[in-house]
Amino acid sequence: MTRFNLPESSLPTAWFNVLPRMATPMDPPLHPGTQQPVGPDDLAPLFPMALIEQEMSPTPWIDIPGEVLDILKLWRPTPLVRAERLEKELGTPARIYFKDESVSPAGSHKPNSAVPQAFYNKQEGITRLATETGAGQWGSSLSFATAQFGLECKVYMVRASYEQKPYRKVMMGLWGADVVPSPVDDPSSPGSLGAAISDAVRDTVSREDTHYALGSVLNHVCLHQTIIGLEAKEQLAAAGEVRPDVVLASCGGGSNFAGIAFPFMEDAAVRLVAVEPASCPTLTEGEFRYDFGDVAGMTPLMPMFTLGHDFMPPSIHAGGLRYHGDSPIVSQLHRDGRVEALAYPQGKVFEAAMQFAKAEGKIPAPETAHAIRGAIDEALAAKETGEEKVILFNYSGHGHLDLAAYDDYLNGRLIDA
Amino acid sequence: MTRFNLPESSLPTAWFNVLPRMATPMDPPLHPGTQQPVGPDDLAPLFPMALIEQEMSPTPWIDIPGEVLDILKLWRPTPLVRAERLEKELGTPARIYFKDESVSPAGSHKPNSAVPQAFYNKQEGITRLATETGAGQWGSSLSFATAQFGLECKVYMVRASYEQKPYRKVMMGLWGADVVPSPVDDPSSPGSLGAAISDAVRDTVSREDTHYALGSVLNHVCLHQTIIGLEAKEQLAAAGEVRPDVVLASCGGGSNFAGIAFPFMEDAAVRLVAVEPASCPTLTEGEFRYDFGDVAGMTPLMPMFTLGHDFMPPSIHAGGLRYHGDSPIVSQLHRDGRVEALAYPQGKVFEAAMQFAKAEGKIPAPETAHAIRGAIDEALAAKETGEEKVILFNYSGHGHLDLAAYDDYLNGRLIDA
Repeated sequence: MTRFNLPESSLPTAWFNVLPRMATPMDPPLHPGTQQPVGPDDLAPLFPMALIEQEMSPTPWIDIPGEVLDILKLWRPTPLVRAERLEKELGTPARIYFKDESVSPAGSHKPNSAVPQAFYNKQEGITRLATETGAGQWGSSLSFATAQFGLECKVYMVRASYEQKPYRKVMMGLWGADVVPSPVDDPSSPGSLGAAISDAVRDTVSREDTHYALGSVLNHVCLHQTIIGLEAKEQLAAAGEVRPDVVLASCGGGSNFAGIAFPFMEDAAVRLVAVEPASCPTLTEGEFRYDFGDVAGMTPLMPMFTLGHDFMPPSIHAGGLRYHGDSPIVSQLHRDGRVEALAYPQGKVFEAAMQFAKAEGKIPAPETAHAIRGAIDEALAAKETGEEKVILFNYSGHGHLDLAAYDDYLNGRLIDA
Repeated sequence: MTRFNLPESSLPTAWFNVLPRMATPMDPPLHPGTQQPVGPDDLAPLFPMALIEQEMSPTPWIDIPGEVLDILKLWRPTPLVRAERLEKELGTPARIYFKDESVSPAGSHKPNSAVPQAFYNKQEGITRLATETGAGQWGSSLSFATAQFGLECKVYMVRASYEQKPYRKVMMGLWGADVVPSPVDDPSSPGSLGAAISDAVRDTVSREDTHYALGSVLNHVCLHQTIIGLEAKEQLAAAGEVRPDVVLASCGGGSNFAGIAFPFMEDAAVRLVAVEPASCPTLTEGEFRYDFGDVAGMTPLMPMFTLGHDFMPPSIHAGGLRYHGDSPIVSQLHRDGRVEALAYPQGKVFEAAMQFAKAEGKIPAPETAHAIRGAIDEALAAKETGEEKVILFNYSGHGHLDLAAYDDYLNGRLIDA
């Protein structure tokens, strides 16, 4: 393997805004009660004005505040790595690169948005953030970010995860967050992301000092993640590549995919591929229409691919990909034919994860392994055709806290395999 | 924080051998039966000749084989990081640098020796390695290394860890190792490192195809780890530092400390400080004399600081530092006054770990946190005197699989606090 490290001085100083570059204008989110387009005032109780502006901004580039860059520098720029040992094992003429987002404090790409969200809230005088978390990737990232800015953080964690995955909970506690199982009013319920969102929103609207923070789906979250693709572009050039032929990332709410893919969007020669679980096939089998972001129907209606807001996917290990809907931007790019999508059952995904862990010595998160599966299949296709394809995927997170999932795979206990 | 990344082309190509540079010649290991000095033939059933030669080599620099470098490149050179946010929080004029060994496949410095050990065994026709592991850092590193060379790997894991720390076991299985609880002949016993060594040695001598591998203490293991200090030296120069004033590392069997400290040994202006747990104070309170490496008295007698080979430290979280003895080289350097030693109770250690995790966003292994405690105290001393001291410590491993220990700390359940 070869690593392409960018110097700190090459850290991007502006985010790439895809909104003004969309081929088809975006349909607006609608108020759940009035069904009218949502305006800034509707969102003000939940988010700071700076994030609301980003949510709708027509500006092609948006400056990253210096205070945010100072913290991102703790782990950014992240390495771009050429997976030469994997290429060799596959016997492919393709060149496989991955962007290593697992080096962040919480171990995934999520802090890229948690840090600016905490910053903008602090700047507007907010002293406390409330959020929900499923398996805990987002909750731990926001806990880290709020600790950096001296904000309080309250995390409503899906009760089943709270009880079965204690390590993420400890990580949040270590960074000072107050973590409680959700739903708060029904200790007998295992909980759901939808119920946890309701708890967090209810907390937010009941207190003057508190705002709400969301870890994916929304435009401003996708925006913050574009730093991944911007760095990757520069690193690929340093590696002597003109462009990637294909960019792949796992896709749940969409911000991870957006992060690496959006900065390549304007180059029509680059294929963009979102990879999702076969058990939660939002882009591949869902329908494009207005739907709620949560199970309870409290959020605005968003134009997106959806499996229905009451869809309950099976309890696969890639908890971060168990979402009924998808980012409205990613959805529209898929509808426009700019973004491809494919879906894999988790057995095929873990098989790829094992192959990667042996060849490259890194143990990926189950979510990340979806992108690896896609990348390996692209490389194997290139082997058939003899094409020297350039493949780029996002290594969105490590699997150090997901080893129980590997245990299930190794012992034949996977569902939907 | 600022990271100083070395290009791959700067990866050291030779290990630094401290043996010919010792002020006092080393006393030889003695055969446990005859009490006579151990020769190569005595060790041949356990180790390949290349490692036996390294164990006693007078050569100042020993070339690293290309096949070993090819694998080390998966994560090396590792970053040197200046912990500017920690400095700021401490309000110290000191500059604090750490060498980040947590980026390796198994998450610690251990693969630096596991890879060459697997390589030399493969080269001499061995097809299977047996080893013991306590908490699992060494076992997972050797599992990774043997997978790279297509060797079988058998790991005898202390039964208490096998049952209580399943994640490390899964990691080993993922890399293809066969992991069994030890002692194998007494399923009711929680086991000990000494008993697991006996199981691994018994396995080794009963099979022609098998050798034994040890993860610390021995001279050749310390040798392999010097790549850490060699890189750090070059990176400090790139950072504009003439030398570190003090180098710190946690010290159990000694190879981690050796790795970062030995390459600085010949510069008398550099203080070298080994940090150990107060509950297993080998260098600080042990006696320098010949003692066995294992509890059962099967290994050669080694001249070292020891608490007695039947010493049983309390079950602190820094499992990697629970060893009654110490590397003979490190021991002699301490006796000669070249190496300082200090000991901390684990409460003070976790306090430092938390401070580091908040400031720098990285969660250290409990072993590593000993070095962090020492570095913070050096920085606070510099604050008192106003000295612009340069502090270097080894960030030997991440704590992602040690979050249960943090949970104990956060909930007041630590012993020997």
